[in-house]
Amino acid sequence: MIKAGIIGATGYAGAELVRILWGHKDVEIKWLGSRSYIDQKYASVYQNMFELIEGECLDDNIGELVKQADVVFTATPQGFLASVMKEEYLKQAKFIDLSADYRLKDKNIYEQWYNIKHQSPQFIKDAVYGLCEINREQVKQADLVANPGCYTTCSILTAYPLIKEGLIDADTLIVDAKSGTSGAGRGAKVNNLYCEVNENMKAYGIASHRHTPEIEEQLGYAAGRKITVSFTPHLVPMNRGILATEYASLIKNPDGSYPDAAKIRSVYEKYYGGEKFIRLLEQGVFPETKWVEGSNYVDINFKIDERTGRIIMLGALDNLVKGAAGQAVQNMNLMFGLAESEGLELVPVFP
Amino acid sequence: MIKAGIIGATGYAGAELVRILWGHKDVEIKWLGSRSYIDQKYASVYQNMFELIEGECLDDNIGELVKQADVVFTATPQGFLASVMKEEYLKQAKFIDLSADYRLKDKNIYEQWYNIKHQSPQFIKDAVYGLCEINREQVKQADLVANPGCYTTCSILTAYPLIKEGLIDADTLIVDAKSGTSGAGRGAKVNNLYCEVNENMKAYGIASHRHTPEIEEQLGYAAGRKITVSFTPHLVPMNRGILATEYASLIKNPDGSYPDAAKIRSVYEKYYGGEKFIRLLEQGVFPETKWVEGSNYVDINFKIDERTGRIIMLGALDNLVKGAAGQAVQNMNLMFGLAESEGLELVPVFP
Amino acid sequence: MIKAGIIGATGYAGAELVRILWGHKDVEIKWLGSRSYIDQKYASVYQNMFELIEGECLDDNIGELVKQADVVFTATPQGFLASVMKEEYLKQAKFIDLSADYRLKDKNIYEQWYNIKHQSPQFIKDAVYGLCEINREQVKQADLVANPGCYTTCSILTAYPLIKEGLIDADTLIVDAKSGTSGAGRGAKVNNLYCEVNENMKAYGIASHRHTPEIEEQLGYAAGRKITVSFTPHLVPMNRGILATEYASLIKNPDGSYPDAAKIRSVYEKYYGGEKFIRLLEQGVFPETKWVEGSNYVDINFKIDERTGRIIMLGALDNLVKGAAGQAVQNMNLMFGLAESEGLELVPVFP
Amino acid sequence: MIKAGIIGATGYAGAELVRILWGHKDVEIKWLGSRSYIDQKYASVYQNMFELIEGECLDDNIGELVKQADVVFTATPQGFLASVMKEEYLKQAKFIDLSADYRLKDKNIYEQWYNIKHQSPQFIKDAVYGLCEINREQVKQADLVANPGCYTTCSILTAYPLIKEGLIDADTLIVDAKSGTSGAGRGAKVNNLYCEVNENMKAYGIASHRHTPEIEEQLGYAAGRKITVSFTPHLVPMNRGILATEYASLIKNPDGSYPDAAKIRSVYEKYYGGEKFIRLLEQGVFPETKWVEGSNYVDINFKIDERTGRIIMLGALDNLVKGAAGQAVQNMNLMFGLAESEGLELVPVFP
Repeated sequence: MIKAGIIGATGYAGAELVRILWGHKDVEIKWLGSRSYIDQKYASVYQNMFELIEGECLDDNIGELVKQADVVFTATPQGFLASVMKEEYLKQAKFIDLSADYRLKDKNIYEQWYNIKHQSPQFIKDAVYGLCEINREQVKQADLVANPGCYTTCSILTAYPLIKEGLIDADTLIVDAKSGTSGAGRGAKVNNLYCEVNENMKAYGIASHRHTPEIEEQLGYAAGRKITVSFTPHLVPMNRGILATEYASLIKNPDGSYPDAAKIRSVYEKYYGGEKFIRLLEQGVFPETKWVEGSNYVDINFKIDERTGRIIMLGALDNLVKGAAGQAVQNMNLMFGLAESEGLELVPVFP
Repeated sequence: MIKAGIIGATGYAGAELVRILWGHKDVEIKWLGSRSYIDQKYASVYQNMFELIEGECLDDNIGELVKQADVVFTATPQGFLASVMKEEYLKQAKFIDLSADYRLKDKNIYEQWYNIKHQSPQFIKDAVYGLCEINREQVKQADLVANPGCYTTCSILTAYPLIKEGLIDADTLIVDAKSGTSGAGRGAKVNNLYCEVNENMKAYGIASHRHTPEIEEQLGYAAGRKITVSFTPHLVPMNRGILATEYASLIKNPDGSYPDAAKIRSVYEKYYGGEKFIRLLEQGVFPETKWVEGSNYVDINFKIDERTGRIIMLGALDNLVKGAAGQAVQNMNLMFGLAESEGLELVPVFP
Repeated sequence: MIKAGIIGATGYAGAELVRILWGHKDVEIKWLGSRSYIDQKYASVYQNMFELIEGECLDDNIGELVKQADVVFTATPQGFLASVMKEEYLKQAKFIDLSADYRLKDKNIYEQWYNIKHQSPQFIKDAVYGLCEINREQVKQADLVANPGCYTTCSILTAYPLIKEGLIDADTLIVDAKSGTSGAGRGAKVNNLYCEVNENMKAYGIASHRHTPEIEEQLGYAAGRKITVSFTPHLVPMNRGILATEYASLIKNPDGSYPDAAKIRSVYEKYYGGEKFIRLLEQGVFPETKWVEGSNYVDINFKIDERTGRIIMLGALDNLVKGAAGQAVQNMNLMFGLAESEGLELVPVFP
Repeated sequence: MIKAGIIGATGYAGAELVRILWGHKDVEIKWLGSRSYIDQKYASVYQNMFELIEGECLDDNIGELVKQADVVFTATPQGFLASVMKEEYLKQAKFIDLSADYRLKDKNIYEQWYNIKHQSPQFIKDAVYGLCEINREQVKQADLVANPGCYTTCSILTAYPLIKEGLIDADTLIVDAKSGTSGAGRGAKVNNLYCEVNENMKAYGIASHRHTPEIEEQLGYAAGRKITVSFTPHLVPMNRGILATEYASLIKNPDGSYPDAAKIRSVYEKYYGGEKFIRLLEQGVFPETKWVEGSNYVDINFKIDERTGRIIMLGALDNLVKGAAGQAVQNMNLMFGLAESEGLELVPVFP
């Protein structure tokens, strides 16, 4: 059994980790860290776990935790892990960080977008960006995985093959993303009250959301050069789910025609045909967040618009699963040599 | 492997059966019956099952189905199974009927409340009412199980121990129940449109809902006499979940005092202490539908109100799981001698 | 023009007062009190009022306010008005208090249920309970109106005529009420976050909610004696609306029969036939909260259940309008001799 | 009093017309047409209008209707009005058509996108596109107004000034729009059931939605040339509201710099500064659908993104008010020489 510790176990992403790890046959949860609920029964904070989880919430004693755990998940605010990480901890346990601390290779970009001084930039270099379908081999070797953001996972995977194969002009990429409210966390803020979110739709973080540089960096690797992307997140009155609608100009064939649907599809197939957790939908069927809810799937499809010369790509995932806890477990499975889908055979719940 | 056939596989309860049976290690789904979608891919009707279920929807050929299946689930409109059932089918396969056809022992009451003539009353006698926690031993022996209604499962289990032990006056029982909209089915009706249900709350079937005689019959067995119950269902703008708020007058102790909370709790413990799928919540914690969503649990608790001499009992379950498909699988497990919780280790999803 | 001041203008009830008074042709809003947002533009707190309300939020300087205003609305936490009220203020302005401070005639009951010491019990006696349809004449003379609670308005009006006329046994009255989330206020609490309320249904304040004694007192007046009532509120995932489902035993006619629907209806007509804001629905049509949303209406109907000897009464209103701000304005109209419906010709919005 | 007739009075847009016209002091509703509900009381179809509207639904007898009415609103399926319109009707009454029949000047484009043969193209030329803020003077003279689509009103108004003034490259315009479900109408379709829409987010009509040519035509007039636009609508789990997020490349100043926020704002002010129903929000405040719900407002703002050289423009409106019935009444006011905002002083409802 792999012994797992979670810091930040009472946030929504942390709670989803608990739910998934509870059902993972090779994992035992040893540490439920939650500074806000120390000594309270975990199941009193998340009553759904009543009679399933007996333990109490513990403080964030990472030094002690690494002694007890083989793997540490940090579902914590930005800056936390960077501020406490030490070389010795990485020798004692593997780390999967759900925050952004080690996602960006350029510390200056991190500091600029997050407005935090990075406390341990020395670990950035060896941290692996844990987008399993793209960095699988590196993840297997990693001691520290930077688990991608929810929006970024969806945004990157939806466009990646077409950028990698040079079918679209990466600099024309516009990502209009819509997220359920669990993405905003469990903090008690007026903006996230039921009556403020319900029956409402809004954009936020316009041209300034912190997932932007993460998308740009990763898709830049695919493009083979630095790119900029327009990214606009929106808050949707639903609990879970992200839908990314992405627009880009198609690069014409040498004969001046646009690549056709068969060509585009073949490229998606090339990259994702063997991927269990990416479902390329049938022609004319477009992703809906409800069809992936509760599961680790990303559903993807596209539509060519010859009138405008653009392609519209769409991707959907559950922000708490493939967008956070599910992908973290997928990374753990890779790091520990388990079957990649172990504990993740979650059937989407409908309705 | 148990071979299972489902008639009515494209309703919400049928789809939930598919979801649960897909994850059941001892079951193979052999037949996805759906008159409305014959020859269409099941996954095109329920896109969440894309790449999980390959088959197509089949017609309701029950004669053929019983040859291929060990167990037949009927998630069909009232009257369907009664109209096609034959003695020989029961020799070929076990039946679990999610409709009301064999729930009521008195055919006249069935005909009166459902306004349908019962086509095969001869099977009523041997049908077992599949409320597992109460009729476990009979279910094990049954060839035909009448799977209880969603409201009835919740309503009965919430009050059962107190009636059985004579702590409340059964004739004062009032059940005010609230259900998510999946209980109304997937039929295309104006009343169930998003804009009609959303931001709305209403009662329906007032003093006339067809689950009433089912509650009365079963709780009547517990009371040892015929009883009448006030039952009012309500439609709630949410997908899943039933909450039953039940009121009854406490029967005083010989010394004129009311039974106290410890006494009441001990009675619940007596009946449910060993039940995996019934969670008696801690004192002061009351059921919320969200805490059981997606799972087979019933959460129960109570509050004594000495001012009025009443007790308020509360129960919550997921209408599609413990209220339909989950309980059907629980019944199947009992009928086939499997562990009762096989395939039902579903952790409630939150949020 | 009547000059109005609002203390607590940035809570949901306060904001609804602003919305309604803005459209009231005889009223000018002179004071938008909000301790939390002092000096901020009101429209920056409630962006819906952008370009409609120019003013800024002011502190709770009641001494100054009574000099500027003819009427003061207090949409404040329990205990606030009682703690600041002075005899002289009542000489300078009329008061309509949306809190519970002067609703209960027995100060001990107030202190027991609210767990607050009443700071100015001397004003209780002359305060008028502002349930307009019942206390219209007293309201017209009042200087201080205790505006009823949202649940209480709905609960009382739904049962009042039948209790008043002795058709039901008041001590058997059970009120099972369901409310939208705006009733919980705009405070930043985890329990009221979108993800906690959405897709969830729960009871709260079971056998202990503070609107209970208010219902008991007022219906006690109708019954002509002290009564106790079972009252259970529930939180519904919607913004606005209260639905009360009320159960009571019918009192038989001298000949042993139950009063029939025509009789019951005639009694409702007797009390409400001339009431603009109470709509007794046609036979077989039952209240839904959506049909009154945004308006000052209370929709009411009933169903006799001869099987159990009970009647089920149902009432629906918008908790922020007839349950709070609308009724407050209705009281103001009465107090100032205006047409009772002035500013309240609000058509329910659907969908 | 202006006598108004409505054909299609029981759809959501028709019902909103009824709600608004009911409160319009210069209008009397003479005809509630609804083929599906002939002879039924209107208030039994829309129970919110109980005791407000007494009449019954009538058949679509347009010949009779024009004799009784001064203005006819058609909230009907595409093709209806075109199939019945006659020259003589236009002499008897003014027409405001909420369908698309006369919106597009090029009949071929209509026939191609709507897949209907246009039955009366001779009326297209004189029909005025009723986007009041842009075509005010023509509307005043019109006998037949083509009331704009919900998406189109929002999409056009949000970008119009910047295209008109040549600040953005019209061919780079991408409109990602999100709509509440009332836009899908009241037809009984599985796709619009509560359980299918709730907790779900999806795009539809990708690169093929019929509002696309309408946006292109109108913004083409502003650009002074034919343009193509990418338009993607999405269905949001809420009743009302449209949010349009629009992306375009800024056209650089002669010195190579981008136009700054002050410049952009001044252009919006130039066109909308005097418009009552367009609210240009303060810097940094972005539109949310909830802030305009129930009202005739369009809220607009923008953000310059120098990194990508794009501007993000956002607009929000209530699809049933400014996106349909409200704008229709605004057009009527103009056509009859009334104050433009008569009957439209609707304060947005929050929450």
